[in-house]
Amino acid sequence: MKALHVGLVGMGTVGAGVAKILLEKNSPLLEKLDCIPVLKGIADSNPEAKNKINIPSNVLFTADARELVNHPDIQIIVELIGGLHPAKEIITLALENGKDVVTANKMLLALHGSELFQKARQHGKSISFEASVGGGIPVIAALRDGFIANRIESICGIVNGTTNYILTKMTKEQVTYSDALAEAQKLGYAEKDPTMDVEGIDASHKLAILARIGFGVDFDYNSIYHEGISTVDLSDIWYARELGYTLKLLAIAKKGENTIELRVHPTLLPHEHPLSSVHGVFNAVCITGSAVGDAMLYGRGAGQMPTASAVVADLVDVALGRAGITFAAMKTFSGCSERFPIANALQFKTCYYLRFSVVDKPGVLAKITGILGKYEISIASVIQHKAREAGNVPLVMMTHLAEEGNLQKALVEIQQLDVIKDHTKFLRVEE
Amino acid sequence: MKALHVGLVGMGTVGAGVAKILLEKNSPLLEKLDCIPVLKGIADSNPEAKNKINIPSNVLFTADARELVNHPDIQIIVELIGGLHPAKEIITLALENGKDVVTANKMLLALHGSELFQKARQHGKSISFEASVGGGIPVIAALRDGFIANRIESICGIVNGTTNYILTKMTKEQVTYSDALAEAQKLGYAEKDPTMDVEGIDASHKLAILARIGFGVDFDYNSIYHEGISTVDLSDIWYARELGYTLKLLAIAKKGENTIELRVHPTLLPHEHPLSSVHGVFNAVCITGSAVGDAMLYGRGAGQMPTASAVVADLVDVALGRAGITFAAMKTFSGCSERFPIANALQFKTCYYLRFSVVDKPGVLAKITGILGKYEISIASVIQHKAREAGNVPLVMMTHLAEEGNLQKALVEIQQLDVIKDHTKFLRVEE
Repeated sequence: MKALHVGLVGMGTVGAGVAKILLEKNSPLLEKLDCIPVLKGIADSNPEAKNKINIPSNVLFTADARELVNHPDIQIIVELIGGLHPAKEIITLALENGKDVVTANKMLLALHGSELFQKARQHGKSISFEASVGGGIPVIAALRDGFIANRIESICGIVNGTTNYILTKMTKEQVTYSDALAEAQKLGYAEKDPTMDVEGIDASHKLAILARIGFGVDFDYNSIYHEGISTVDLSDIWYARELGYTLKLLAIAKKGENTIELRVHPTLLPHEHPLSSVHGVFNAVCITGSAVGDAMLYGRGAGQMPTASAVVADLVDVALGRAGITFAAMKTFSGCSERFPIANALQFKTCYYLRFSVVDKPGVLAKITGILGKYEISIASVIQHKAREAGNVPLVMMTHLAEEGNLQKALVEIQQLDVIKDHTKFLRVEE
Repeated sequence: MKALHVGLVGMGTVGAGVAKILLEKNSPLLEKLDCIPVLKGIADSNPEAKNKINIPSNVLFTADARELVNHPDIQIIVELIGGLHPAKEIITLALENGKDVVTANKMLLALHGSELFQKARQHGKSISFEASVGGGIPVIAALRDGFIANRIESICGIVNGTTNYILTKMTKEQVTYSDALAEAQKLGYAEKDPTMDVEGIDASHKLAILARIGFGVDFDYNSIYHEGISTVDLSDIWYARELGYTLKLLAIAKKGENTIELRVHPTLLPHEHPLSSVHGVFNAVCITGSAVGDAMLYGRGAGQMPTASAVVADLVDVALGRAGITFAAMKTFSGCSERFPIANALQFKTCYYLRFSVVDKPGVLAKITGILGKYEISIASVIQHKAREAGNVPLVMMTHLAEEGNLQKALVEIQQLDVIKDHTKFLRVEE
């Protein structure tokens, strides 16, 4: 094994973690391998980034990423700047220059993965991206290699630590969404502008990557349905708990007969579901395969060293030559993977949690269930509590499996009943 | 990628599962890869094995494994007969004949791993063994590749489905050990002679493999401490629950300053520990690494298709050439890995659960805690219940972290007190 030289583009939190591991004198890599990837250069547009760690004099530091991407002695480019541009241009140039790429950039891969994978194939190079989903959890490798003998049936995960922290806090401490968000921001778990996390966009980027690897298909990222947690009401967490369910933001990919359901939304899970006990900033992904059955991988989904752990694992994979073999052998990276139809929201089939706000008088339940029945939606359980305000009571129901198109039609009709006093809330359920 | 031919030795439950996947017309492998490992021959000493699946005429069936091992057109031997002999001889001959080996044989690797790994290196071949631990869970790959940037601090797992089924049944249905074992045998989860499983021997074989990969060291298998579940008393499960703990058979490897603790024993875990919710025949392994922090892999630890899933993943790894690269690059397979001192039981440091049977009179608690204090063992919590029989009461204590050598000395001294009426039970605790 020859020593491969690494150029690190982006010296943010994760970049500094990667540099730390690569520069460590008694690195775990040296303990385990005869030879390790060697850090040759670091690029960051912020000159202050240089001071994050002690950079030895034989490691180049530059503000210009192109200096590394064009460097003849660098064989691997690690892209850790995130976002679409200039990350895409840097990766493209690196591949064109005959360098392998390691990246944690989920947004870029979700939106332009196919194009970049084709570019890599065209130049006989590889793109590795374990760190793009689930931080230090080796979920890409498991889906791609460990479960290769399986037809993947579903992938279902908590892949965003920020929202899981917020929901955990709301559930355990009964604080409102805004208070939990404020706390997450204070602790550095949420950004100042939390949109990407709380609206489920980050999770949908990760879902796009997982679904491509798991199902070996290509699709338009924009066909992923996503809904965040910013409208989650504390009372729904309480009622759900009473019914034996925990609320989580899940990224779900399920292969049906002719379509794939790809959806990110707040989801009720039975308390005994393994994902129900994934708390705080932890991530976990459940995978169901035709041979392996149900499996789960769990760990820290973000943070400097967990994410750096995944980046460095990819670097070793490239340095040893395994990444190149994998990339060349797998159809999903070859550009010949099929485009697969994605189900639209009206085609989803799940159980539903419904919370109606109704007037407290006889016959209300009959009217509502009558309409639901008309649309073939049957009820699994009902909770009705005493009125908090005069005349208005919450009526909570759990349905059996139903089609979302039918549910939507029923809800429109129910909304027109004079006994309905407010907007009806619904949440999807996974069993 | 050239098509590599596979010789399958041992057509038991798992062997038939592997053959099924390899022979499937619309195999998931074909969906994902350009080229797949091809089943060339099957060997089983039992001619009836032939009828387990529909073997095509171009696949050789023989009673004599040597026919496959010496076959010039076979490049990979899958050994699935288990046990030490003739598995060891078959694998050795396969390596000498220039064939790569895939095996699920945990006992053989635990006892003779070093010798076989050296033999493989000597012939430039590889041994892959994902299926030897945790069935379909890709835990070997995670420890070896996914967490390569980590110094592994501890590995802690439920790696035996039989005992986890029995303990789950005892805990949830409050049946005795013998009744739970009988049920497990009826369902095919336990063998007629269940010794290997219930005495923790199978788990210690798996622990030997995990510890070698995780810590990159070699050691004498016999230095692993193991204790089974056959003496677990239902009352200890109850008291533990009262204290907030669940009883599980754990395989634990922990790196200390100068030694490694390697131990398999019934263990109390806090209810909120992720391993506490691993029920029935499921397996799970928690890994703590220097960069990744806490991670867990969970899934079916046994059974035909989950185990076959892991075997076939190894076959793909060999066929693509990745297994050979890994095997050549990693020090732990090179024969140059250090022998590392293993802690003996007296050096273990954990918290302990103690159940004394005492006479119900004043001053008993003072006497016992006095002796414990003398040996620097302090008490975290105590439960004392009313006597079931006249004069004899169980006194349950949970200690803080203590050295097992000290505990043993204290227990010998306590046993001599006239207030102690029976053998004292102790269980180790992980937090």
